[in-house]
Amino acid sequence: MNDRVIISVNNHIATVTLNRADKHNGMDLDMLRGVIAAQKKVRKMKGIRAVILQGEGPSFCAGLDFKSVLAKPLTAFASYMQLWLPFQNDFQTWSIGWREVGVPVIALMHGNCFGAGLQLGLGADIRICHPDAQLSMMEAKWGLVPDMGGVALMRELMPLDRAKELTMTGRIIGADDARILGLVTHVSDDPMHTALTLIEEISVRSPDAVAAGKFLLQDAWRALDRAALRAERLWQRKVMGTKNQRISVQRNQKKEAIPFTDRTID
Amino acid sequence: MNDRVIISVNNHIATVTLNRADKHNGMDLDMLRGVIAAQKKVRKMKGIRAVILQGEGPSFCAGLDFKSVLAKPLTAFASYMQLWLPFQNDFQTWSIGWREVGVPVIALMHGNCFGAGLQLGLGADIRICHPDAQLSMMEAKWGLVPDMGGVALMRELMPLDRAKELTMTGRIIGADDARILGLVTHVSDDPMHTALTLIEEISVRSPDAVAAGKFLLQDAWRALDRAALRAERLWQRKVMGTKNQRISVQRNQKKEAIPFTDRTID
Amino acid sequence: MNDRVIISVNNHIATVTLNRADKHNGMDLDMLRGVIAAQKKVRKMKGIRAVILQGEGPSFCAGLDFKSVLAKPLTAFASYMQLWLPFQNDFQTWSIGWREVGVPVIALMHGNCFGAGLQLGLGADIRICHPDAQLSMMEAKWGLVPDMGGVALMRELMPLDRAKELTMTGRIIGADDARILGLVTHVSDDPMHTALTLIEEISVRSPDAVAAGKFLLQDAWRALDRAALRAERLWQRKVMGTKNQRISVQRNQKKEAIPFTDRTID
Repeated sequence: MNDRVIISVNNHIATVTLNRADKHNGMDLDMLRGVIAAQKKVRKMKGIRAVILQGEGPSFCAGLDFKSVLAKPLTAFASYMQLWLPFQNDFQTWSIGWREVGVPVIALMHGNCFGAGLQLGLGADIRICHPDAQLSMMEAKWGLVPDMGGVALMRELMPLDRAKELTMTGRIIGADDARILGLVTHVSDDPMHTALTLIEEISVRSPDAVAAGKFLLQDAWRALDRAALRAERLWQRKVMGTKNQRISVQRNQKKEAIPFTDRTID
Repeated sequence: MNDRVIISVNNHIATVTLNRADKHNGMDLDMLRGVIAAQKKVRKMKGIRAVILQGEGPSFCAGLDFKSVLAKPLTAFASYMQLWLPFQNDFQTWSIGWREVGVPVIALMHGNCFGAGLQLGLGADIRICHPDAQLSMMEAKWGLVPDMGGVALMRELMPLDRAKELTMTGRIIGADDARILGLVTHVSDDPMHTALTLIEEISVRSPDAVAAGKFLLQDAWRALDRAALRAERLWQRKVMGTKNQRISVQRNQKKEAIPFTDRTID
Repeated sequence: MNDRVIISVNNHIATVTLNRADKHNGMDLDMLRGVIAAQKKVRKMKGIRAVILQGEGPSFCAGLDFKSVLAKPLTAFASYMQLWLPFQNDFQTWSIGWREVGVPVIALMHGNCFGAGLQLGLGADIRICHPDAQLSMMEAKWGLVPDMGGVALMRELMPLDRAKELTMTGRIIGADDARILGLVTHVSDDPMHTALTLIEEISVRSPDAVAAGKFLLQDAWRALDRAALRAERLWQRKVMGTKNQRISVQRNQKKEAIPFTDRTID
């Protein structure tokens, strides 16, 4: 990992910070690699209860840094070749890879959240947006379409007509409009405070139930009814009887905050 | 059937009432069996125009009565084994079984609507919620995930991020928040009155068209475009030319409330 | 083509007008054929940037003109036989055929938008609705179900419970309710002005990016995650490096409105 992305762990929360403030966290290949490495790293942290994903400086992430990527012809060519892979490529893992992390991933979005930046936020489970944020599915500005997981992720959040309008125009919208459209979950003057409050609320639940809930919803969301019902049974079997599940029951019975053990669901 | 669930038919409306008021209609196995038996019974009533699903006493249904289920080891074991069935189990039929009933099923939700209770409501076609109601996908409290059809049913109603937040926190929300999230269809100070008004509105339509409309929407909702279009043609063929369809045409032509005959679509 | 549907092209916008004002643009078979012919015609116009779909006279389209269709027994029989085709039939192409057009299709909805008329509007990418409009999925009134693409299209826009309520009742709703439900995208006192403003906004983007964005969203919307991600890569490969994509980049670099060339994506 390089210093484009910084991970710190505190009080059972892993904070992943994009660290290229002078460029509004414009995504170059180092940052792409840094984010994917961070996903792998936090996946292995069995004791954390949440990931906070944020950007240092004036913006969450202002999108792909075209200049930097195009500056090196070999790098540009390798990036382009990713489009020809027959499976999820690194640019898509950038956003959708956060789904594999067995704790809630909460994106704090502020300043410019454009293109790759918006798509990164969409990969989080919950988006908390500062009122000053500006959001845009900006690919159309470059004559392109969203291809970093943004289309796959927008589907879960908003109606098709609104998604078409955002994608075709590349329009920049404010936080409140984004919330009304479904693009962000919450708007808050203090996104970090709102995130910490939410994490506190989630932390009284078994880490295994939380992980299984996330994975179950993701598995079932697109499936036919039969497969969605199967996913319910499958994930319930995985959590039922685990140590943390029994601790949950005891917490209710004894009205006492018995500590959970590390997450086992993955 | 036992007395945990009471069915009465009046004025072409079947009212299904959970009847364990002193326990806030906590679901035990008798109630589970009673609800499934009620589904079968109302499916066979070809003359009714709607089902109203409600709870006697202070709550619609406060969820699974863990104490009662766990009290009998054999019963608890049999319930657990349901998770290993390779098809829709009884706990899922509890909610999703209402989809097989060829009339609109309207849940009147008040008081506590937790866990199994919320999932039961989600199985109805329309949810009318009293302002005092408290709703929660409460499984996380017990270290579990929703596995009674709730995930399959939430998908049709709300964005994924909001569903994750409800599932991971097990948060209790009020009626207005539930409506904004999509979890309930309407909020009303008098849910029964609102339901009866809606049923009156539906009852001027052919019972076959109403049944086919329900089944068509359910069949098409998750399908690929091609299959959704096929479902439109299939269900239209079933209703076109039926006696009730011709009565609909005559009602429009003669401006007269010619009575419909029994439903034939199933 | 007959004179039931009129196409005019002006300032790179193709306007398709239903032209049976005295019948509130009630759909007869000539109008059905006219609309399908118009879809084919505008698909071939590589220089246009948008299609506006509107109705002459007091209404957008008040639905199927049953009298006219049933007046000729052979015609009625041929129409009925369309339901037995194993693939998308003409009545479905009426609405969903607009998806194949590689520019944004914007429906201006006013007056009565009933049954076939509402379904036609749902086939557009964006619906702009006059406050006076009345909308209804009116098939239930005739003892029928929506079978002209309306079910396939409603799925992308609204929750299942609201779609069931509209379909089962055949209720007529106003523009604001329709917007809240998701049935229309915007409400405007001057739908044409709102449409032209939106088209102006889209026209600064590459016509290939706009077409690919539309097709990508449609392809990905119902797919499993893996297929949605594949669609992102596929459509990006198609637009990247096209002449219009390079013009987009130059427009950003030179801050100059360099004209785009004809659309090549189809």
